[in-house]
Amino acid sequence: MSYDALIAHARQTQALAEVAGRLGWDQETVMPRGAAGQRAEEMAAMEQVLHARRSDPQLGDWLAAVTPADEVEAAQVREIRRAFDRATRVPTDLAARIARVTSLAQGDWAAARAADDFAAFAPRLAEVVALKREEAAALASGGDLYDALLQDYEPGATAADLEAMFGALRPRLVALRDRILGAPQPPALTGTFPEAAQLEMARELAELFGYDLSRGRIDTAVHPFSSGSGADVRITTRTDPADPFNCFYSTIHEVGHATYEQRVDPAYALSPIGRGASMGVHESQSRIYENQLARSPAFAKWLFGRMQAKFGGLGVDTAQEFARTVNRVTPGFIRTESDEVQYNLHVLLRFDLERALIAGDLQVADLEEAWNARFFKDFGVKVPKASLGVLQDVHWSVGLFGYFPTYTLGNVYAGCLYQAMAADLPDLEADLAIGDLTAALAWLRPRLQVHGALRDGAETLRHATGHPPTEGPLLDYLEAKFGALYGL
Amino acid sequence: MSYDALIAHARQTQALAEVAGRLGWDQETVMPRGAAGQRAEEMAAMEQVLHARRSDPQLGDWLAAVTPADEVEAAQVREIRRAFDRATRVPTDLAARIARVTSLAQGDWAAARAADDFAAFAPRLAEVVALKREEAAALASGGDLYDALLQDYEPGATAADLEAMFGALRPRLVALRDRILGAPQPPALTGTFPEAAQLEMARELAELFGYDLSRGRIDTAVHPFSSGSGADVRITTRTDPADPFNCFYSTIHEVGHATYEQRVDPAYALSPIGRGASMGVHESQSRIYENQLARSPAFAKWLFGRMQAKFGGLGVDTAQEFARTVNRVTPGFIRTESDEVQYNLHVLLRFDLERALIAGDLQVADLEEAWNARFFKDFGVKVPKASLGVLQDVHWSVGLFGYFPTYTLGNVYAGCLYQAMAADLPDLEADLAIGDLTAALAWLRPRLQVHGALRDGAETLRHATGHPPTEGPLLDYLEAKFGALYGL
Repeated sequence: MSYDALIAHARQTQALAEVAGRLGWDQETVMPRGAAGQRAEEMAAMEQVLHARRSDPQLGDWLAAVTPADEVEAAQVREIRRAFDRATRVPTDLAARIARVTSLAQGDWAAARAADDFAAFAPRLAEVVALKREEAAALASGGDLYDALLQDYEPGATAADLEAMFGALRPRLVALRDRILGAPQPPALTGTFPEAAQLEMARELAELFGYDLSRGRIDTAVHPFSSGSGADVRITTRTDPADPFNCFYSTIHEVGHATYEQRVDPAYALSPIGRGASMGVHESQSRIYENQLARSPAFAKWLFGRMQAKFGGLGVDTAQEFARTVNRVTPGFIRTESDEVQYNLHVLLRFDLERALIAGDLQVADLEEAWNARFFKDFGVKVPKASLGVLQDVHWSVGLFGYFPTYTLGNVYAGCLYQAMAADLPDLEADLAIGDLTAALAWLRPRLQVHGALRDGAETLRHATGHPPTEGPLLDYLEAKFGALYGL
Repeated sequence: MSYDALIAHARQTQALAEVAGRLGWDQETVMPRGAAGQRAEEMAAMEQVLHARRSDPQLGDWLAAVTPADEVEAAQVREIRRAFDRATRVPTDLAARIARVTSLAQGDWAAARAADDFAAFAPRLAEVVALKREEAAALASGGDLYDALLQDYEPGATAADLEAMFGALRPRLVALRDRILGAPQPPALTGTFPEAAQLEMARELAELFGYDLSRGRIDTAVHPFSSGSGADVRITTRTDPADPFNCFYSTIHEVGHATYEQRVDPAYALSPIGRGASMGVHESQSRIYENQLARSPAFAKWLFGRMQAKFGGLGVDTAQEFARTVNRVTPGFIRTESDEVQYNLHVLLRFDLERALIAGDLQVADLEEAWNARFFKDFGVKVPKASLGVLQDVHWSVGLFGYFPTYTLGNVYAGCLYQAMAADLPDLEADLAIGDLTAALAWLRPRLQVHGALRDGAETLRHATGHPPTEGPLLDYLEAKFGALYGL
């Protein structure tokens, strides 16, 4: 009785959350530019409706009375309780202040980044940090502040566990990176890549990787993203006439996110567990699609032939060279442009800095200096300007503290999944070399994707692979792959 | 105090209504086809939120205590009270049954139309009529049932007034139609009209007629429509390679609807009066743009030159012939394909039949026979199949009883507006002949469009023209225009 009431309430809330999410899609893809002001009021009205539903006192009564009948009901109740606790613990006034300040901070961040002026942004960012610490205190009820924020993105994870995992990653990543940068570099792509042809091929790749276009669509936007769940999961991509890999690999990445949502058990549709288990697991799907599968030398061989047929000369002569080009490792300042090896070093830097900010051990006024010193230590080069350093990411301006580590967690999870998949599928490499993803996708769905948020992130991985997730498989995979590609 | 609370509540409701409306736009333009089931749940959840807000008991308290300070506040309160009364008078259970049955009826209607089988649809339509009669009784509290339904579309109008107006229209329309059909017919258009070029020209026409694309957009859809209000008003169009007029005139029609919404006083944005006054006034804007302005012989002259430049030979030799082609009057069964003269005869037929259905004087089982008999009487030809007769329109299946008469009311209103505009603008014809709409649009905005729903439909017209609306100007205009075109 209480369960039925809870789930009916939650389904309606989820339907409204889908509507609010689609407003975001609309804003980034088709909204007339003059509609921004009105849209802000529409979004605020939807958020108010959602907050009222999530903190509805009736939920408290039902949650107190409910006895879940099985694992699925227990998971649904767990998710409803988490959302209810969050909505009721954070005072409405604080939530409103966070919404207002982060909305202003986004504009201030963009202006400061354009002007390469961190000092101009620091006072606003200090406000954001202070408000997020206040929110964390409300959520933590005496526990660790950063852990409290982390639960929004990776329920069940702790900073201490992540610190241990990341500590084990760092030395082997650094050693691998240094060996690669000392070796001869692969050639860059040259050629002509008309944007319409890139989009055609992006569509072909999306379908190859299992994206169901009858329940999704591909549009262009400034930033690639995936949006929605269940029967309406949309992705965006972008084109750069000089760099088709940007379009193709960002499309495959978003298809990883989108197909995860599309492949959740339809019985869970529009319910609390009818979506990805955590940001880390979500990122594991986008990453295994993009990296372990689509950047494998085997798949690169297929892509080489397909791109030659579509675009003509690529400035790269053999499939072997092409595989090296797809996996170029070069020095750089920007996380989002980074490669499989260095990407996690960018994330580890942010993880340590944001923990210090939330703990109160680092002040925003000292953040740029701390960033630059740490970057020099980790990458051996001096950050020349803030837009290539502390101002490069939007996350902190919008209050996303606790989000960054899930990027590396996703890579670690992808490493675990790929190890298990490769052990189960002896023909995987041969399949990839002819552009056949069928077996890989068929392996992932029943083990992981279909279960949605039935279990938390780490448990989802344990269920899929039979082992608790660790960093070892990712490191082994990177060392083997790049060792072979670079002849180390 | 009560007023401030009412208007703040209403603004948020309106913001949510815009979101719900945009879901409808999304569904008709970009939604993946597999998302229909989930979308129905999303729409139902939004409707439930909106219904709860519109029937919020707090509104009753505020409405009882409010004293509007001026004309604008009085109009806002009138609109809020109307929505509150409607939401509280119709039992929630009845509203839910109507939503469910009309949703099913839409599919049944489409299937029956495809099969030309009215009998297959009749039982479901009988359910719809019974439920709408029940709703009308709840709304009418003892008054006329049809009048109660009419208020949803044309507040303040009565069936008796419309009957008198339509009675005066009919004989002169019939006489004009008969004289035209006895005269030599103009040639049809021939030529090649690539769809991309049609869409380019539709965009050009939309901007010419004042559509602000920074607060709107044009997409293609199966049926042309306008959607949204304030800063985000979108239209759709469609193309037929053999008939560019379909695209051009439906675009101008929807631009009439859309610019009306765009030109309402921004101070009323997202408030109850921040939109068109009634369906009749809305249709007056779409019709005066499409017919009195864009189908005038003067504008046809400009369009002739523009289309020749864009598409080459049109199979019509002179601007005079082209104006006759734009205004072809031919026998036909379908309302939406009809011309300015016969269109209203189609509407009058539906008005009488739907009044009889709601009054209980006509049974659904007898509807097809009644339709066919009446069509023969009004048009002199026998309806060969239901898809060309009683099954041609979707309206009744979705419960839109009381909507049809607003089409003709819109034409009557457009006639009144055009008479006043032409009297004020001696250069109007010369302007139209060079494709210059500036003066016509500048005349409409301050007199009518800017006021939104400050006044009801008839009062909006009286304020704009200085006279209560009557059918005389429309008839005078039609007789003069078609008399000259057909040399009667």
